[in-house]
Amino acid sequence: MPNASPSVLIVGAGAVGAFFGAALARQGATVSVVCRSDYAAVKQAGYEIESGLLGAHRFVPSATFPDVAEAGRGYDYVVLATKVVDSISRTELLAPVLDDRTIIVLLQNGLDIESEIAAAFPNHELLSAIAFIAVSRTGPGKVLHQSEGSLVIGRFPSGTSTAAERLAALFEASGVPCRITTDIVKARWQKALWNATFNPISIMGGVLDTAEILRSPESVQFVRDVMTEVVNTARAAGHTLDEALIDKLIAATVAMPPYKTSMALDYEHRRPMEIEAILGNVVRTARRAGVHVPRLETIYAIAKMIEQARA
Amino acid sequence: MPNASPSVLIVGAGAVGAFFGAALARQGATVSVVCRSDYAAVKQAGYEIESGLLGAHRFVPSATFPDVAEAGRGYDYVVLATKVVDSISRTELLAPVLDDRTIIVLLQNGLDIESEIAAAFPNHELLSAIAFIAVSRTGPGKVLHQSEGSLVIGRFPSGTSTAAERLAALFEASGVPCRITTDIVKARWQKALWNATFNPISIMGGVLDTAEILRSPESVQFVRDVMTEVVNTARAAGHTLDEALIDKLIAATVAMPPYKTSMALDYEHRRPMEIEAILGNVVRTARRAGVHVPRLETIYAIAKMIEQARA
Repeated sequence: MPNASPSVLIVGAGAVGAFFGAALARQGATVSVVCRSDYAAVKQAGYEIESGLLGAHRFVPSATFPDVAEAGRGYDYVVLATKVVDSISRTELLAPVLDDRTIIVLLQNGLDIESEIAAAFPNHELLSAIAFIAVSRTGPGKVLHQSEGSLVIGRFPSGTSTAAERLAALFEASGVPCRITTDIVKARWQKALWNATFNPISIMGGVLDTAEILRSPESVQFVRDVMTEVVNTARAAGHTLDEALIDKLIAATVAMPPYKTSMALDYEHRRPMEIEAILGNVVRTARRAGVHVPRLETIYAIAKMIEQARA
Repeated sequence: MPNASPSVLIVGAGAVGAFFGAALARQGATVSVVCRSDYAAVKQAGYEIESGLLGAHRFVPSATFPDVAEAGRGYDYVVLATKVVDSISRTELLAPVLDDRTIIVLLQNGLDIESEIAAAFPNHELLSAIAFIAVSRTGPGKVLHQSEGSLVIGRFPSGTSTAAERLAALFEASGVPCRITTDIVKARWQKALWNATFNPISIMGGVLDTAEILRSPESVQFVRDVMTEVVNTARAAGHTLDEALIDKLIAATVAMPPYKTSMALDYEHRRPMEIEAILGNVVRTARRAGVHVPRLETIYAIAKMIEQARA
């Protein structure tokens, strides 16, 4: 890898990809994007990013492509920022844009989303990044950054690397807190504790926001019981989470203004939902390990009914 | 009780109460009704009942009251046909219309709905009736009978009585199949097997009809698992249900055209839902008996979130 500013391709540059791509570009990286739905607007004028933390700014990619087939190769990093849903083949998106030396970065939601990519591209360094951010697309090329905006990044399946540290340094220099972890899988389990619980529940009953999910002492106890099943599954998979994290997360959620999960927003806008990446992979891990997770099984079964009824 | 045709007061004469009240009236019973919302229409012209099985007919009550306070006393039977929801005080509805000799008939949904009434009126004979019927109100005083239309009736907590047999004979003579049971509590558990499972699931995800609930092999297995928890709870409460009933009910449900449960219709029309009577009482029975019902606990917790979010 050259010491010069790296070249980066963001594949699936929606709100999340644009926000973090803009951060890298501000530090001098050459950042190109593949964006399908907003291609025309972004090609013409880049992204208009409105952020409470960073102010309003414009991010004009070095190049904008409507499709990976046109993006070519030669990138230091390819950052995959699509949803993880059945309708998107991630390996088909990556294959056309990888050089031998290209580092793959998964900037995506969910648990156990790396194995498929590691198996398909065994000779590539694979980084996995978890975004803590509330950001949304408000129009073609328009991104609204609402809150947070930090990253946890690590090498998959574990450890770190020069490439990871270099990327993290660029983010940090750009004002995006980016923590390196040597155990990214455990970090994904920590995030799954909240995500696998609140996301599927939030699509039941029209849409339930966090305040509606945590309204009564009984429902708080129920959420605690679901989260305990995630902790038990993580432990069986070799990742010991601090059980005190459960009450911390609940308290933090109660303290925030009511908000809708990403799955709730997808449900409302009739977009594909990341049920398998966020919850299904937790349930499958539990089944393989023989962990009894009847509450997760229940919300999973009902979430799938909802998804299929809508299809 | 006189040998002459009995006098009956139906309290809460909506679609169900009107349908079965009409049956008794056809056999010469003196049937009066308390109906609040459709009082004006019913007072003027009675009920117009459209039925595939019985044809179109009109039922003009002997007397129509807007409120129990005006209905007086002196009835052989008082049939309570309201919903079982927190906003309706059943004891306050019954107290003003009971004589010493009046027999109370609960024509209502749910499990363990009798204890409260038995405790409040310990000196009255208490009959409990389960309706198997699809009937709905289509306008003021207008009732559409769509399918089924049978009853199971018994004395609470067990056994039968002359009064139960007399009522059953009137229904049978009128064309309404009415089975006497000496174990009405077990019969309610049998009905709960379906109701406690399908009703709450049906209000998750907007509304799910029976076909959407049973669409995939995984969701059928999930429904089977939920029903097994009901069977385990019934057993712990002293009522052994035939486990083969689970697959029979699922097969029968799959064989029918897709339909919406009563709770789904209540949800759609923003009416109070019978979550406590249909599911909450099953869960509480399990808790008292120490039966592990995590799937029922989960759908109960989420159903309550939905109810509270809407309130």
